[in-house]
Amino acid sequence: MEKEISLFKEMKLFNNLSEEKIQKVLGICTKVSFPENTIIMQEGKTGDTMYMILEGDVEVVKTLVPEGMDLDEDEKIGNKVFTKLKAEDHPVFGEISLFEESRRTATVKTLSDCTFYEINKDDFLRLAEKDYELGYQIVLNIAKMVCSRLRKADEDVIKLSTVLSIVLKET
Amino acid sequence: MEKEISLFKEMKLFNNLSEEKIQKVLGICTKVSFPENTIIMQEGKTGDTMYMILEGDVEVVKTLVPEGMDLDEDEKIGNKVFTKLKAEDHPVFGEISLFEESRRTATVKTLSDCTFYEINKDDFLRLAEKDYELGYQIVLNIAKMVCSRLRKADEDVIKLSTVLSIVLKET
Repeated sequence: MEKEISLFKEMKLFNNLSEEKIQKVLGICTKVSFPENTIIMQEGKTGDTMYMILEGDVEVVKTLVPEGMDLDEDEKIGNKVFTKLKAEDHPVFGEISLFEESRRTATVKTLSDCTFYEINKDDFLRLAEKDYELGYQIVLNIAKMVCSRLRKADEDVIKLSTVLSIVLKET
Repeated sequence: MEKEISLFKEMKLFNNLSEEKIQKVLGICTKVSFPENTIIMQEGKTGDTMYMILEGDVEVVKTLVPEGMDLDEDEKIGNKVFTKLKAEDHPVFGEISLFEESRRTATVKTLSDCTFYEINKDDFLRLAEKDYELGYQIVLNIAKMVCSRLRKADEDVIKLSTVLSIVLKET
């Protein structure tokens, strides 16, 4: 329990939470293990579960072109973004699913045997409505994380538009 | 007061809030008026105020290329996205500023004489920490709004990457 509490304290998701609140969150976590090369979430599919890595490495793959577009195998790989994440970075996946069922924005695959903590949307919402302070703190942390992803995406839109306008000017 | 309460009830931002909670929010709102052609927020500048339109129309302008890029006047206009918003759509600007001071992602200019309700970050955070249920509900609503903007931005990234890969293939 001590180990989990100090691990959770390092996660952005639980920023500002007291030990008592963290223990309440641990009460709705389920420990799950997956072997190497397991896809734990698939881009485009809906989901209502959030994952936190406890042990192991995973690969996050995001596609840059729409599904069904006619591409050969090399192009398919060229149009994906791969990111490797390790347990020591305390990554969290699917945090949006804590408050709304939504399509996964990337595929996550285990690169080694992995152990995760899993939290389900309904369990989280039930806990948040019993302890609004806890609900407020966690949703505030998630909102900040989503905002920073939105800023990143907005920057990507600007960069891509710029490159596109340069390329179109030259042709 | 009646009019404001029924107006607030139609805003996504206050979804699921009881009348009692809405009245508490009204307690931290300031009514402000601006003449036609006033810039109420400027893209890139930091801010800690959220606005809700009560009366009038505004224009939202978002630049698609980085500042300082060498463009002639026509190109500058071609690289902006303009959206017109009316009071009847109950638009909200700067909702992210309710919980973190951040750079404005667009410029908002009044197209007619306008009246807004203004909420300041510090006032909101103080209220949320006095009434966590209210804080939880509003931050949850904002988080959902930001998620939907993130999904839109992610789609734009995919569309732009697709167009770019087609253009690069053809040249």
